[in-house]
Amino acid sequence: MSVAERVNRQWVLARRPQGQVRLEDFARRDASVPVADLAAGEVLVRMMMFGFDPAQRGWMDDRPSYMPPMAIGESVRGSAAARVVASTNPAYPEGALVRGLFSWQEYAVVARAGEAAPVLIPEGVTPEEALGVLGGASLTAWVGLKTVGRLGADDTVLISGAAGAVGSLAVQIAHLNGARVIGIAGGPEKCRWLVEDYGADAAIDYRHEDVAARLAALAPDGIDLFFDNVGGETLEAGIAHIARFGRIVLCGAISGYNDAEPVAGPRNLARLIAQRAEMRGFILLDHLDQVPAARAALETWLRDGQLRYRTDVQQGFEAIPATFLRLFSSASQGKQLLRIE
Amino acid sequence: MSVAERVNRQWVLARRPQGQVRLEDFARRDASVPVADLAAGEVLVRMMMFGFDPAQRGWMDDRPSYMPPMAIGESVRGSAAARVVASTNPAYPEGALVRGLFSWQEYAVVARAGEAAPVLIPEGVTPEEALGVLGGASLTAWVGLKTVGRLGADDTVLISGAAGAVGSLAVQIAHLNGARVIGIAGGPEKCRWLVEDYGADAAIDYRHEDVAARLAALAPDGIDLFFDNVGGETLEAGIAHIARFGRIVLCGAISGYNDAEPVAGPRNLARLIAQRAEMRGFILLDHLDQVPAARAALETWLRDGQLRYRTDVQQGFEAIPATFLRLFSSASQGKQLLRIE
Repeated sequence: MSVAERVNRQWVLARRPQGQVRLEDFARRDASVPVADLAAGEVLVRMMMFGFDPAQRGWMDDRPSYMPPMAIGESVRGSAAARVVASTNPAYPEGALVRGLFSWQEYAVVARAGEAAPVLIPEGVTPEEALGVLGGASLTAWVGLKTVGRLGADDTVLISGAAGAVGSLAVQIAHLNGARVIGIAGGPEKCRWLVEDYGADAAIDYRHEDVAARLAALAPDGIDLFFDNVGGETLEAGIAHIARFGRIVLCGAISGYNDAEPVAGPRNLARLIAQRAEMRGFILLDHLDQVPAARAALETWLRDGQLRYRTDVQQGFEAIPATFLRLFSSASQGKQLLRIE
Repeated sequence: MSVAERVNRQWVLARRPQGQVRLEDFARRDASVPVADLAAGEVLVRMMMFGFDPAQRGWMDDRPSYMPPMAIGESVRGSAAARVVASTNPAYPEGALVRGLFSWQEYAVVARAGEAAPVLIPEGVTPEEALGVLGGASLTAWVGLKTVGRLGADDTVLISGAAGAVGSLAVQIAHLNGARVIGIAGGPEKCRWLVEDYGADAAIDYRHEDVAARLAALAPDGIDLFFDNVGGETLEAGIAHIARFGRIVLCGAISGYNDAEPVAGPRNLARLIAQRAEMRGFILLDHLDQVPAARAALETWLRDGQLRYRTDVQQGFEAIPATFLRLFSSASQGKQLLRIE
């Protein structure tokens, strides 16, 4: 094979965001990528589509977490769907589509194996579906409700951030399992999605309604399972209405992700004692053994037309940081994606 | 049997406490008690000693909890040791000592059976031991650590309110199970008890030390099990140092019991996600099946001289409300008890 190089466009972390993440926290850089001379088992992939997730914001801070902090000057960690353009590994044939945790660059050489290795995208599944309705956010919703939250068909389930990428799947998974579902979202349009498209029994518009009063009316016997993506005041309202032996699953806390100073916490944690309730944080990575079953269930529902999903697909490599910032505005209208060309 | 009546001194709840509980919230009343004409199975007991617990303060508020709120004008619910003075029930022979959940009155007719019925105090156990080292606070510590908290010998355990009735037993139970124990208490004297008397490996004086800084130094690998009696800022400090997959057991939140307005909650609950930690409230009543094993273990340790316990025994029926108020001051020097005469 001849040695050749190509330009590898990258977006790197220029500095650690302070509070609200900004465009200036990122920098464009051109590197090079070997297009031949792959070592045995290595695979060269070219990114097709990136998926964006609020958790990426957390990885940018220099503090211990479930993943090492991103390094300054390196391309920004993130999910992507990619095409295999050269391969010495029969598990990844040339032309195949894969999805995995890559970074904000055009090409990558993959040498990983094991749990974190990219996975093949099945025939008939688009990159948009692989990163969206069948992606990590949906698997997170499934695992959080079923494995961590022990979802039951008799449960009254509360889901915050219910119009988001994780939340909208959580609403549907709870509904398809027979539970009664109350969703919290911002604005009348998103609340309409919850009820009309996702199967929620009721929706609460936190921007225009008194969440606590609506919860008292909608769930007089309390919330059996609260899947929280928001934290802060929303979490406090859910705790106030938790049922005896209720479960609170902490999936995210987007209300605080961009605050330099931590926001006030729920003032009513003693309610967990009176109600003998539990609260548990989780991340998908601890439950990878559940992923095949979750993915199979989601694929079946998708094929049967039972899953609805919104994506917001931006265009072009240069727009990557601006697209990431859409997550933290009200601009995003569904799972945030970007097609490279 | 002849019909006769005796004066039954009582302390009743005169009004619901607003914020800090006060002497004026209680009123003395004389009722009467039948000393004969017991129905079949009934037992007349005379109180010997009362035990006091911060949870009683919670029962005085008119809000749903794990027990019905106390009623205005009725004698105040509380634990006591009593002697059987008349009986038609062979399970409770005349002269026997019992302990149970009674109320602030001199006599009571017991007709209860089942789980909430008074239990006989074994030969050789004093009322002080029955209400103290073998009482509900100690059983709560045992169940909270072992059943709810899944205490392991390799755990680093943090206990707040560690010099109190529950906390001092929790420190000893964790220590006797082989765990490494850090206790938090107020003042150098109580901190000395923790290490010298109860077997704690380290003590933090929250009045004079920076709890977070001390925790960082004492538990660089984090806290595996946090048994919290305090809530508020103490809970926040423990969350900040929780280990991966750590467990937080919420036993009480005395820092907020007397506040009319709820105190600020921990601002760092998102830490439970990053650490995949759980937080669980519990009460002893849900774990009565564990009580025989717990009591047997405690009795064995007590007999073997392995348990240390402090009691603060006040005197006289008239002093009951003032004794209860000692719980919320720094006056109490151990499990708060009162001998009736």
